[in-house]
Amino acid sequence: MKRLLAALAALLLTPAAFADVLVDNVNGYTLNAGGKLIRFSAMLVDDDGKVQQLYSKGDKKADRTRYRFDGKGRTLIPGLIDAHGHVMGLGFQAMQLDLSDTRSLAEAQAKIAAFAAANPNPRWIVGGGWNQEQWGLGRFPTAADLDAVVPGRPVWLERVDGHAGWANSMAMKEAGIDASSIAPAGGKIERNGKVPTGIFVDAAASLVQRAVPEPLPRIRDRAFEKAQEILLSNGLTAVADMGTASDDWHAMRRAGDIGRLNIRIMSYAAGIDPLLEIAGTGPTPWLYDNRLRMGGVKFYIDGALGSRGAWLKQPYLDSPDEHGLNLVTDTELKNLMSRAAMDGFQVAVHAIGDKANALLLDAIHEMADTYKGDRRWRVEHAQIVDPADLSRFARFGTIASMQPVHQTSDWKMAELRMGTDRLGGAYAWRSMLANEVPLAFGSDFPVESPNPFRGIMAAMTRTDAQGQPPGGWQPEQRLTLLQAFHAFTRGAAYAGFAEDRLGTLEKGHMADFIFIDRDIFADATPEQIGATKVLETWMAGARVWPN
Amino acid sequence: MKRLLAALAALLLTPAAFADVLVDNVNGYTLNAGGKLIRFSAMLVDDDGKVQQLYSKGDKKADRTRYRFDGKGRTLIPGLIDAHGHVMGLGFQAMQLDLSDTRSLAEAQAKIAAFAAANPNPRWIVGGGWNQEQWGLGRFPTAADLDAVVPGRPVWLERVDGHAGWANSMAMKEAGIDASSIAPAGGKIERNGKVPTGIFVDAAASLVQRAVPEPLPRIRDRAFEKAQEILLSNGLTAVADMGTASDDWHAMRRAGDIGRLNIRIMSYAAGIDPLLEIAGTGPTPWLYDNRLRMGGVKFYIDGALGSRGAWLKQPYLDSPDEHGLNLVTDTELKNLMSRAAMDGFQVAVHAIGDKANALLLDAIHEMADTYKGDRRWRVEHAQIVDPADLSRFARFGTIASMQPVHQTSDWKMAELRMGTDRLGGAYAWRSMLANEVPLAFGSDFPVESPNPFRGIMAAMTRTDAQGQPPGGWQPEQRLTLLQAFHAFTRGAAYAGFAEDRLGTLEKGHMADFIFIDRDIFADATPEQIGATKVLETWMAGARVWPN
Repeated sequence: MKRLLAALAALLLTPAAFADVLVDNVNGYTLNAGGKLIRFSAMLVDDDGKVQQLYSKGDKKADRTRYRFDGKGRTLIPGLIDAHGHVMGLGFQAMQLDLSDTRSLAEAQAKIAAFAAANPNPRWIVGGGWNQEQWGLGRFPTAADLDAVVPGRPVWLERVDGHAGWANSMAMKEAGIDASSIAPAGGKIERNGKVPTGIFVDAAASLVQRAVPEPLPRIRDRAFEKAQEILLSNGLTAVADMGTASDDWHAMRRAGDIGRLNIRIMSYAAGIDPLLEIAGTGPTPWLYDNRLRMGGVKFYIDGALGSRGAWLKQPYLDSPDEHGLNLVTDTELKNLMSRAAMDGFQVAVHAIGDKANALLLDAIHEMADTYKGDRRWRVEHAQIVDPADLSRFARFGTIASMQPVHQTSDWKMAELRMGTDRLGGAYAWRSMLANEVPLAFGSDFPVESPNPFRGIMAAMTRTDAQGQPPGGWQPEQRLTLLQAFHAFTRGAAYAGFAEDRLGTLEKGHMADFIFIDRDIFADATPEQIGATKVLETWMAGARVWPN
Repeated sequence: MKRLLAALAALLLTPAAFADVLVDNVNGYTLNAGGKLIRFSAMLVDDDGKVQQLYSKGDKKADRTRYRFDGKGRTLIPGLIDAHGHVMGLGFQAMQLDLSDTRSLAEAQAKIAAFAAANPNPRWIVGGGWNQEQWGLGRFPTAADLDAVVPGRPVWLERVDGHAGWANSMAMKEAGIDASSIAPAGGKIERNGKVPTGIFVDAAASLVQRAVPEPLPRIRDRAFEKAQEILLSNGLTAVADMGTASDDWHAMRRAGDIGRLNIRIMSYAAGIDPLLEIAGTGPTPWLYDNRLRMGGVKFYIDGALGSRGAWLKQPYLDSPDEHGLNLVTDTELKNLMSRAAMDGFQVAVHAIGDKANALLLDAIHEMADTYKGDRRWRVEHAQIVDPADLSRFARFGTIASMQPVHQTSDWKMAELRMGTDRLGGAYAWRSMLANEVPLAFGSDFPVESPNPFRGIMAAMTRTDAQGQPPGGWQPEQRLTLLQAFHAFTRGAAYAGFAEDRLGTLEKGHMADFIFIDRDIFADATPEQIGATKVLETWMAGARVWPN
């Protein structure tokens, strides 16, 4: 309010800069307030960056418009929303050495050497993505293999599955590792005789990891900026950050404080401690003109299926002594959920296995007796659900926050772990909708690519990038384009208590939209939709990518 | 900028709400840009809350003014600035049990019982201020003395000097203390036979302290609000927070995020960790319309004189084996200062003893070779300075950030600790000015009262509340009213890199001012100045206290 005179003065000097913008001559689509797909040819954006009006061809347009942007007939849709990702993780991954495309140890060594040369400043070289199977190496790589290309700086590289790390001699030295080192429970140090070879499996990786220096603030800031750029370039204008640590939050605020926060973040604190430290007594307001809000918290019940961490009702088929991990007891879970809910925080809980999902539904049902009102309990992943539990999801408005690409990445592994009989409620998007469960889609970036068009394609086909299995895995769970699009826009906004401002291009909502290189709603195949390229990303009526 | 239309719409509906305010008919004083005291009878504040113009009697006033506030001839001066305080500490202290006014154990017990009854919610009762000497008790109090009035909740009360704590049986039980407990180095557990009596001296206090629960976020928020209210009611509109912890910062931001931050805070992080975590790569911008900025960091070289923690060149007179504490080595200090200065952060260092001050001056002189430009190195307290070092202060623009009331509280103790011969550069405000050292005044609240008028009185008299010693201690170091007023306004703003917006009522500066009950510049005695009452406190042209 206090800025009026300054703004008035500015208006007098450069009147046009504050006028409404007419985004004209577009092939526009959005869901409307009723969830129906509608078309438009122009959109008036007010100077708060909100949608003022949509026009169809031939409509008379407002007189007061000062700026007209010619969309040149391109297709415009709302900015997509990823309901489950890890913003800082995406940025850090993008800055690190990535070996996932290497086909041999020699190729990996060449890439490592080139990365070291191109990045002389960080003392440690950190990265991942290697896979000795893909290299056809017939053994784990060794510290010596790394020393051959980078002898003078510590190198620490995670295996593609995150279940092993590869150190060079300098890294082991800085971590204080030698023949006398002992692996912690749940971990293994690969050895040649007594001498560690450089490979640290599972929990033993922490022996090296703890020696890796914490990133400097400027590296965090750069990682945030990098993540933001990647997300915008993928057509995402909003994301739920699933597990915001204190350092992450500060990086986001630093960007906001200097006006460089150009994506909307629905933040879920990484547990109770940062939740109470940061947000304190309840969700923060929307900060920086609807760009950042900590509205809730993320908890974990179990691990992941690939590493047999998903908590199952029956033993793993391929490991009959294991049921997976339960990271919290029933009581601990309810205490955590209660601690957050009592202050009005939204609760999002990672549950992958059928046992974890059942336990979470029990807990939600018990919570809902005490914490009434519109709570939108979120089940993150909801990956393997006992079909008997599907009908329990819709009670109390529980949201299924799912990642379609996980299904296409995981289906073979899931069959190995559990067999087909127990997968009747696995990645069961359509069953969720049939049970009237609000569905929110995301990618779990950087675990998967943040590209939402690949997510939409996966949702429509249930086949992987190689078209496997033909016809789709459990094809009865495929979604229509409109269902998938809803889950990546309005559904994801709803899951973050943001459907009053994000997800659709309705009057009063933020004018966040993208131009894409094809009309996905006009007779495009799922494969064509999956190959969509984003041309421009706009937030609040201004282009933010490319910039 | 985006808010223009909304603001315009609001202007059309309620035009007066956004107009300039004329604060008229006042007996106004401020320093001007040249540091001279000037008078005015009216002030025009623009709708950014900034001073637009000052008027003398008879001047023609702007036509466009929509609001006129009648000051009814009262005296108006700039809001005062405390250059060294502890915001959250002030709030917490105000919420805790304070026994400093009790004259007997029985009176203390009655006050403790009443506090427990009035505050049923916090499980622990925490407070301080007790002094068994003042009670004439002839012994330390005991846990049993506390159990007699509060048996069912833990009670933990710090002695007035902070050098001992008094626990009841419940507090000892929760802390796991019994006859087998061992005091850490530098601490002592008072015992009756083997049984702890409830008194924990110096380092032993941590045995109980660590069992006291961390304050909940809502308590932190309440403490912040309380502190803000106390500061505003004392006529302070800006403070330097000397040692902002991460939790403190979050509480300040929560207040800012919901529009309840009504004091300006120049924040100095409590060490490197929160500095890098929060501000990261350099000072934050001014946030919330000039209400909050983390511009630097606070370090410590030594302790305090009362507890013989001040680091002295020669041994303590009353303890010839002691030189005080050096909390960092010379090299550590320079590394810390360098780490902050390399990213452009301002450095403020606590130095009380003459050795600590000399060491700091050495370090600053060395730093200044590398970190050029306007750095404004701050010496916090600069309490006991070797007269030989006084002339070194002014080099490199080093600022003396001092607290006049400390002198009047400390002078007897200082003579006991060091004798008069070694105090030629003690609390040497006038010598600092004579050496052209920029002087910034504060109170070190809550160690002392935040009342800046008592600070001004102390600076003018160098006598304590009882008028001791008559004529003032080392009266040649007394300041004029104008010198003291400068150090509590412009000097304190300059010390925080804020003289371009705070400290004086110049055109373009924030219109932060107070109405007081007397004309301190018209023939008032120091005692009358010290008794000044604040009537109203305004920030950015709006009244914030009382509210």
